[in-house]
Amino acid sequence: MTLREETLKMHKDNNGKLAVCSKVPMNNRYDLSLAYTPGVAEPCKDIKEDKNLSFDYTCRGNMIAVVTDGTRVLGLGDIGPEAAMPVMEGKAVLFKTFGDVDAVPICLDTKDPDEFIRTVRLLQPNYSGINLEDISSPKCYDIEDKLKEIMDIPVFHDDQHGTAIAVLAGVMGGLRLVKKDIKTAKIVVNGCGAAGTAIGKLFVNMGAENVTMVDMFGTLYEGIDVQLNRVQQELAKTTNKAKFKGNLADAAKGADVLVGVSAPNVFTKEILETMNTDAIVFACANPVPEVSYELAKEAGIRVAGTGRSDAPNQINNVIVFPGVFRGAIDVRATRITEEMKVAAVMAITNLIADEDLKEDFVLPDAFDPRVAPAVAAAVAKVAIETGYARVNVDPEVVRANAAKRIGR
Amino acid sequence: MTLREETLKMHKDNNGKLAVCSKVPMNNRYDLSLAYTPGVAEPCKDIKEDKNLSFDYTCRGNMIAVVTDGTRVLGLGDIGPEAAMPVMEGKAVLFKTFGDVDAVPICLDTKDPDEFIRTVRLLQPNYSGINLEDISSPKCYDIEDKLKEIMDIPVFHDDQHGTAIAVLAGVMGGLRLVKKDIKTAKIVVNGCGAAGTAIGKLFVNMGAENVTMVDMFGTLYEGIDVQLNRVQQELAKTTNKAKFKGNLADAAKGADVLVGVSAPNVFTKEILETMNTDAIVFACANPVPEVSYELAKEAGIRVAGTGRSDAPNQINNVIVFPGVFRGAIDVRATRITEEMKVAAVMAITNLIADEDLKEDFVLPDAFDPRVAPAVAAAVAKVAIETGYARVNVDPEVVRANAAKRIGR
Repeated sequence: MTLREETLKMHKDNNGKLAVCSKVPMNNRYDLSLAYTPGVAEPCKDIKEDKNLSFDYTCRGNMIAVVTDGTRVLGLGDIGPEAAMPVMEGKAVLFKTFGDVDAVPICLDTKDPDEFIRTVRLLQPNYSGINLEDISSPKCYDIEDKLKEIMDIPVFHDDQHGTAIAVLAGVMGGLRLVKKDIKTAKIVVNGCGAAGTAIGKLFVNMGAENVTMVDMFGTLYEGIDVQLNRVQQELAKTTNKAKFKGNLADAAKGADVLVGVSAPNVFTKEILETMNTDAIVFACANPVPEVSYELAKEAGIRVAGTGRSDAPNQINNVIVFPGVFRGAIDVRATRITEEMKVAAVMAITNLIADEDLKEDFVLPDAFDPRVAPAVAAAVAKVAIETGYARVNVDPEVVRANAAKRIGR
Repeated sequence: MTLREETLKMHKDNNGKLAVCSKVPMNNRYDLSLAYTPGVAEPCKDIKEDKNLSFDYTCRGNMIAVVTDGTRVLGLGDIGPEAAMPVMEGKAVLFKTFGDVDAVPICLDTKDPDEFIRTVRLLQPNYSGINLEDISSPKCYDIEDKLKEIMDIPVFHDDQHGTAIAVLAGVMGGLRLVKKDIKTAKIVVNGCGAAGTAIGKLFVNMGAENVTMVDMFGTLYEGIDVQLNRVQQELAKTTNKAKFKGNLADAAKGADVLVGVSAPNVFTKEILETMNTDAIVFACANPVPEVSYELAKEAGIRVAGTGRSDAPNQINNVIVFPGVFRGAIDVRATRITEEMKVAAVMAITNLIADEDLKEDFVLPDAFDPRVAPAVAAAVAKVAIETGYARVNVDPEVVRANAAKRIGR
């Protein structure tokens, strides 16, 4: 069978990938009287007096929603809520498998951002967090920012922040290997969409002082005479302080780090050959990257990675989101901040000791069982330290619990 | 431990009652490539071309939502969406345990019926059906009717129709035992709220010609000079054709069947003693019924039942909703009609053969494993016959599959 045949068969034979299950026995009238009437009235009454108890007494305490409007699904574009379901459901499976986070898919049948926002707000009592997914840019920014403002639980757009954290972890590993400093490294990010802007922002927040963003319009700089969205406008101020003007090929000359979240095959061998020695390239376009791992190596790139699982140094958000939400949920965080994202980056990269770093191993494997517990502990620690945790749990306990829950 | 302590401990120790689980393996890169990228793009592309495939390729095919705004939860009243969660979650556990229907709780943080309707409509791509729950009257009518109008999947307000089907099944069993005919029996329903009106309507739809509805205002009749909601207005036309005027005590005189969905202890011994011989009484107020089983028997009632699990003939919706949705889902029904409800009643009552009927056994037990399969088959059969099924499945196959799925 082809991959297409096999994946369709798997989806059909199982009627999708996700089910619900009961955590309590239901074999007799006694079980019924505890889980349903009349016993169930007791947690209801207590929660009515203190809404926070809903995190303790109901599945809300470990449940998040993976929410989309289906306007930008994988590389398929605006395919609508029904067609987006297999991806959201797959994501929910990953949350469960890698983080023991109960996640449910929510595909909304609207393209109106205000309606999207209102709906997610009304759903808040059911969840401990919201993972936004596959929403087109620039409305994804407004949706996330507005929801963060009006909600008391974390809202995290994985296409932005999950990708940014994974890329930064890879870059940090690469920089350690080649003994360069993020502060002074010349960094170029090609693509100013949702993922690209989040990557640029996280570079800056991690201390990078020489970041240049590039898009169809060439390099981004303050005062550039093109239509920018508000996030691009902010980045124009915090990056490319030298106001360097040029195209991708111009910007990449002498660069130490080049990240692509753009389009297939745009990192040509010619461009890569002009980079600095010990160059690092992450080409994240999916499924066809900006440059294949092989071609990047041929062009003399020291550390190369893509989004593909069939090549080394895969950028895969699955090393990020299960742990981020595991940690946020465990301390009942009210939001996921830039500081927590930085902590997640460091937790991931530090799983590989200096002496274990290799050109084709600067990122832990997606199936490395230490990843989610480490990320969870790091996120929980910062949440507690910065006052965004509603419950105080020792980060080492968060790590140990996560390792136990995941059981891998 | 008291029941209160025990139920709170159970809810807290398990962090609620419901979890999600994966139906597919996720142990290596190959699993990941089928369930997530790149394989997942295949079902997405196919569903984009034909939305109906979302029922086959995603968990939508077996998933429903249990939706409330928390405005009328159990006997607790308007306790809000967070506090309603334990009940919705418990209901989801019952759907899973008794019908192998994947159900998720959705507690909406709004009391505005229009916002409720809009939200549920936007959630449609995720589910095969909507079970409305614990919504105050009369807005529950508008919400249900409007959703039925604008949605392509079944919408079922269990407090109305689940209760009505369970009560009618009990009454039909009782009538068979005492050899009376529903057509000519004198039937009184005390309580014109959501459950009461649904019971009255189902009595009429099952051929009862002598039904009288009673509420605080006394008997309901056409032209009565009190403020009625539209559902009560309709019932005023189809019941009490003789326009009998009086209070509950007046109406109950000589009645063959008395159903209460009203308030504790309102069926006094004096009232019950005036009923016809071989009288049938179902007192459904919860947790304290209109009359206890014991007192009803003392008053000479032949067949008595309540909502309580500690007395015979319990009216428990759990004999209804898992099977109704199991059948509706299996034939991908677009709605649940009155005819399907009648079929469900007959399927339940016919599980007890004439010779097995006893005064304290006119309804199958909630844990009788034949119930949900029988109800599912009956609902599926009518759905197919009346053109509301999108998929044609032999009802006997529906029954067999349900029995196998539930495995009890």
